[in-house]
Amino acid sequence: MKRSERTALISKIVSDAPGKVFGLSYFCDIFGTARSTVSEDISVVRRSLEAHGHGKLITVSGPGGGVRYLPFADEKSALDIQNRLCNALNDKNRMLGGGFLYTSDIMFDPSFSTDMARVFAGLFFNTDANCVVTIETKGIPLALMTARLLNLPTVVVRREPRISEGPTISINYFSAAAEKMQKMSISKKAVKPGSRAIIIDDFMRAGGSIKGIGELLSELDVTVVGIGVGIASITPKTKKISGYRPLVYLGDVDESTGLIEVTPNFQIFENI
Amino acid sequence: MKRSERTALISKIVSDAPGKVFGLSYFCDIFGTARSTVSEDISVVRRSLEAHGHGKLITVSGPGGGVRYLPFADEKSALDIQNRLCNALNDKNRMLGGGFLYTSDIMFDPSFSTDMARVFAGLFFNTDANCVVTIETKGIPLALMTARLLNLPTVVVRREPRISEGPTISINYFSAAAEKMQKMSISKKAVKPGSRAIIIDDFMRAGGSIKGIGELLSELDVTVVGIGVGIASITPKTKKISGYRPLVYLGDVDESTGLIEVTPNFQIFENI
Repeated sequence: MKRSERTALISKIVSDAPGKVFGLSYFCDIFGTARSTVSEDISVVRRSLEAHGHGKLITVSGPGGGVRYLPFADEKSALDIQNRLCNALNDKNRMLGGGFLYTSDIMFDPSFSTDMARVFAGLFFNTDANCVVTIETKGIPLALMTARLLNLPTVVVRREPRISEGPTISINYFSAAAEKMQKMSISKKAVKPGSRAIIIDDFMRAGGSIKGIGELLSELDVTVVGIGVGIASITPKTKKISGYRPLVYLGDVDESTGLIEVTPNFQIFENI
Repeated sequence: MKRSERTALISKIVSDAPGKVFGLSYFCDIFGTARSTVSEDISVVRRSLEAHGHGKLITVSGPGGGVRYLPFADEKSALDIQNRLCNALNDKNRMLGGGFLYTSDIMFDPSFSTDMARVFAGLFFNTDANCVVTIETKGIPLALMTARLLNLPTVVVRREPRISEGPTISINYFSAAAEKMQKMSISKKAVKPGSRAIIIDDFMRAGGSIKGIGELLSELDVTVVGIGVGIASITPKTKKISGYRPLVYLGDVDESTGLIEVTPNFQIFENI
């Protein structure tokens, strides 16, 4: 195999398993080459991907070491993605009345959710999280794609306890988005006590759902180490949670003029 | 840029957007090289990926032509994936009573759902589908990853109509899995009349849910062109639908002996 064939294959393999550590010997076995050769191949792949804004290929030292691909959005790419989301949302055909916007096409579009997830993965990469938690239904693609980029499992909180979830813990909470009391339920099998979770959701008004997820997790002795939200409503001003990072803010939705106020969160990378 | 750097980048770009057609000029612009050079680069990438079982990089001719990456599982990889699923399911700790198995960890694991999706994408690549449809909740990852590999949007049928879905069409149906009447609802905004859909779900007993999805789609003048199921129960023998393709079959779940009968669907690639 020529170097150009090996670099194509290394690039493919690390792209398919972001976050995963590959020992050099893994590639030596595939190619039947020496470690020094693989090491040079990896340098070529790193140079090429990093020069074109495709994230980082980092070296993990020590036993169990190797290379790990982190295809996260840097601040420039993040702003592109935030603007892409703003542009998609800013369309009066999305207006459903009562200030609601139709967003399912965006949230269930794999390319869109992957892009948004690249921002969250970059934000939460250093949190040592063990899982990404969301609540059904529209946050699932964002959570799943974030988990994919971080090489973590996803945990989905359900609205109703189900037989197929085994023993569950449930709470009731007030949802400002739904304007009523709602239930949520987590499977005890889904998380390990003592572990660390990132919460991801597609939309947040007052933060009741995310606060509820935090309470469920705390019942299971799981610590929340990051909160990412696709779209955060500006109202109500007082939120039930702090420390959340929205991609964009949704302000006024005015049906008479067709105006939708949506702006990127320019502070998304700042310490909070 | 050296060829080895260009092949690493081409491999990365096509891996990230499976199913999408890239014109040669797209790469010429990135590299500042001639079409003949890019053409040779692509041959190198193709040879390398195809030789190692990573799907196909096909040439699309004519105006709007270029290359298109199809990272689908061939029959050998499909059987590996089916066996991986069987092995994961065959664990008595999954037993929940009443013949139910805990599968959320499998279905919500991005690496597992991606693997399973590679089989469905290979099965349904030639259907000219416009979208991948599923019903909430546990089928969403499989549907989303299949849609990602086919470069299609996902449509999620909801259990209850919601304000945020806009105008919906609903039906009631009998679910053998839930042993009761259930409702399902699709947003009229989610699909275009006259389009073609692949249905994907994680689990099927008698097929009531999938039959229901088909009825909803038919109300919107959408044709079902393929049905993929993660796990199909062997009972009941008589199903409400035909033409579905399960990855694995689930037989007896015997709590007294800890036996779980689960076998790959060896006929998955056969004409039905």
